Amino acid sequence: MAQQLEPITRMVSQLARLPGIGQKSAQRLAYHIIGMPQEDVRELAAALYQGRKAIRYCDECGNYATGSLCSICGDERRRNGQICVVRDPRDVAAIERMHDFHGLYHVLHGTLSPMDGIGPDDIRIKELLARLQDTSVTEVILATNPDIEGEATATYIARLIKPTGILVTRIAHGVPVGSDLEYADEITLAKAIEGRREM
Amino acid sequence: MAQQLEPITRMVSQLARLPGIGQKSAQRLAYHIIGMPQEDVRELAAALYQGRKAIRYCDECGNYATGSLCSICGDERRRNGQICVVRDPRDVAAIERMHDFHGLYHVLHGTLSPMDGIGPDDIRIKELLARLQDTSVTEVILATNPDIEGEATATYIARLIKPTGILVTRIAHGVPVGSDLEYADEITLAKAIEGRREM
Repeated sequence: MAQQLEPITRMVSQLARLPGIGQKSAQRLAYHIIGMPQEDVRELAAALYQGRKAIRYCDECGNYATGSLCSICGDERRRNGQICVVRDPRDVAAIERMHDFHGLYHVLHGTLSPMDGIGPDDIRIKELLARLQDTSVTEVILATNPDIEGEATATYIARLIKPTGILVTRIAHGVPVGSDLEYADEITLAKAIEGRREM
Repeated sequence: MAQQLEPITRMVSQLARLPGIGQKSAQRLAYHIIGMPQEDVRELAAALYQGRKAIRYCDECGNYATGSLCSICGDERRRNGQICVVRDPRDVAAIERMHDFHGLYHVLHGTLSPMDGIGPDDIRIKELLARLQDTSVTEVILATNPDIEGEATATYIARLIKPTGILVTRIAHGVPVGSDLEYADEITLAKAIEGRREM
């Protein structure tokens, strides 16, 4: 029987390495791409490779950037004394979509995870402490994920910063807006009650 | 607020053009690709573009090929007098996976669809008729899909070939092996009974 052509096999195996794309979808995508005008495939391939090449990390905060500083660190108006600490650049994008935070970020590029051998030196904690030498920083908001590793990382960083006298805060845990109390898990609910505020 | 970087936006919009990849998955894929080593992204992009560039259609049957003839048309042992007519190269791949057909193929690259303005001249029917001038052809097996357009195309081609005296056959319709009669639709069931064979 005729084997699948090597260029198709190669295309399928490359596509199947992407998250959420199994062997079947990769096959379907490959056939679609082979049916696309060559110029369109060139644009797709260029967007991936040139895009990857164009993106680097901001020298200051670790967010995605095209130059040495990201657009946020490069914006003088964002220097309001607040630094929001997050795990990765996607979290910066999520918080930016909210249009409500006007300070700077610090991207850790990971969270502490002793089980996976990820310690304080493997994420950008040193870099954060170095930034705090700047006396204009008044508050560090710890916005790591509300999971075990995110909490441990926040606790660890809080302990390091406390002695400097800079205000350290943690984002609130509680029931998501628009959700149904009935379906909230107990820990979230307990946190929501614990964090209650006078109205 | 900070806009998403242009290279990321471009990556997302290119990925979102692929079938089955919505805006959200495209975003997720783009972030994953940005996190990949640059060399791996180069390999992915090259597999897509070089792969697309390397694939052409077989001059004889219209199947995918890397040279002027596909591996099947280039194999003398496949010239057993049978030509199996299919809609597209994926159907060739499907039949080849069965390891049971040893003849040649003819890929129409479409099916007749008056509603979409696709007539006999828009698919490779002329090319099929030309191949039938070769006196070694003894049977044309019509393996277009068992749907309205596939049936219409098969009927149309059968009518053209009949006068040449070459045997024209149509693949059987019936209940799929391993399926459950209870869940077969009525038309399939009717076709299965109509096409019953003595045991």
